[in-house]
Amino acid sequence: MNLLLIEAHELRDGHDVHLSDERARHLLAVLKVAPNQTVRVGVLDGPIGLGRVTAVGVGHVSLHCVFERTPPRPLVDLLLTLPRPKVLRRLWAQIAALGVGRIILTNAERVERNYFDTHLLEPAGYRPLLVEGLQQARDTRVPLVTVHRQFRVLVEDELHALAPEGLRIVAEPGAAGSIAGVVTRSPHARVLLAVGPEGGWNTFELDLLRAHGFRGVGMGTRTLRSDTACIALLALVHGALRDQALTQEQ
Amino acid sequence: MNLLLIEAHELRDGHDVHLSDERARHLLAVLKVAPNQTVRVGVLDGPIGLGRVTAVGVGHVSLHCVFERTPPRPLVDLLLTLPRPKVLRRLWAQIAALGVGRIILTNAERVERNYFDTHLLEPAGYRPLLVEGLQQARDTRVPLVTVHRQFRVLVEDELHALAPEGLRIVAEPGAAGSIAGVVTRSPHARVLLAVGPEGGWNTFELDLLRAHGFRGVGMGTRTLRSDTACIALLALVHGALRDQALTQEQ
Repeated sequence: MNLLLIEAHELRDGHDVHLSDERARHLLAVLKVAPNQTVRVGVLDGPIGLGRVTAVGVGHVSLHCVFERTPPRPLVDLLLTLPRPKVLRRLWAQIAALGVGRIILTNAERVERNYFDTHLLEPAGYRPLLVEGLQQARDTRVPLVTVHRQFRVLVEDELHALAPEGLRIVAEPGAAGSIAGVVTRSPHARVLLAVGPEGGWNTFELDLLRAHGFRGVGMGTRTLRSDTACIALLALVHGALRDQALTQEQ
Repeated sequence: MNLLLIEAHELRDGHDVHLSDERARHLLAVLKVAPNQTVRVGVLDGPIGLGRVTAVGVGHVSLHCVFERTPPRPLVDLLLTLPRPKVLRRLWAQIAALGVGRIILTNAERVERNYFDTHLLEPAGYRPLLVEGLQQARDTRVPLVTVHRQFRVLVEDELHALAPEGLRIVAEPGAAGSIAGVVTRSPHARVLLAVGPEGGWNTFELDLLRAHGFRGVGMGTRTLRSDTACIALLALVHGALRDQALTQEQ
């Protein structure tokens, strides 16, 4: 745990928190905290600061927190066709750790209908996994998650409100455009990245995305497992945005 | 399975192969092959081509193969401090799918000694996982794997022979150099990427790497789990090499 995350409602008087759950056990058993020690603390969707341990007991820890800055919302949003539940379980924390503002999950022809039955699409199923990723990456911003069973309705009617601004790119096997090339030259500070199903988008889906402003980008000739591809693509987009920011500073 | 992989010794007269193991079951049960159908076939560390099904039976399949081209060895080599066995198990196939010429596994201060006890460091443990990744990515080149328990001996005495040429970079949290920037401007076509342990390199290790030509590169301020970081870094290096090749073509 690189950052102890708490919910806003757990704070008393804006500064004090008393923990008696898994987090307290982690502080005591792994970090072995003692009174007056400090740990990095963050409020979910709020600021990051330092918590000074004010009391420890069997299974519980109290902290007094002083907060500093609120991390910015990550500059990347992810439109992801729903992967199989086993892959989705692995991905939640990793996507949150890499940093996304929004996760827009959707259907596609090559997504099996029963993938939508998983409890991993309910907040109680995915939120703990997102928080695990934020603790790893020292972020407090919980990605906003929406689930859309109708791909066409999503792209035609809903996407504009979900991601009103920013460069739109879609990963396509063999596309010539490089992510670095497209993102670095874009005037936009935000990117909406669309990642398709294991078997690829169908022609209708790709045409619909292109008609709504998505530019095709490629990642070479190798076919990757969908979770590996998703991590690789997010890394490339974040890398390109960092390079874009560096270029504009110069 | 995007590519059926066979060992060179399984070929008879350079063209015919008879399968009766898991691969035959996959061809029959998942791909539902019938005589005269063709499937993509590759010889491990050899060429890729097409196999025409000549006979099927209960649990066995025969193919006649015509080979075309041998894939080039990937342009990236990976120097990786040994991760915990659970992470290593997940990584083997993904590293092979992303594409590396060599995997150089080594010790570091923050690597626990018992990580070296895993059967995943023996060819019988890791080769099937590497082959799984190659089948996914449609490659035949099995990464060369070596294990080095002494970091200093590796860097000072052995690395020159293992990776004689190429740009050397080391991932460091917070380093200013961007992978795209450093790789794209490099005159080298190969890259040796060093990825450290979950807790980071110590000062001695970083100094030793720098003294042997490694340049620090960063990936922003977020701390990633070591398997996520390894995939993200390999994706960034491959992306930068593709962009380098595009730039040089122009």
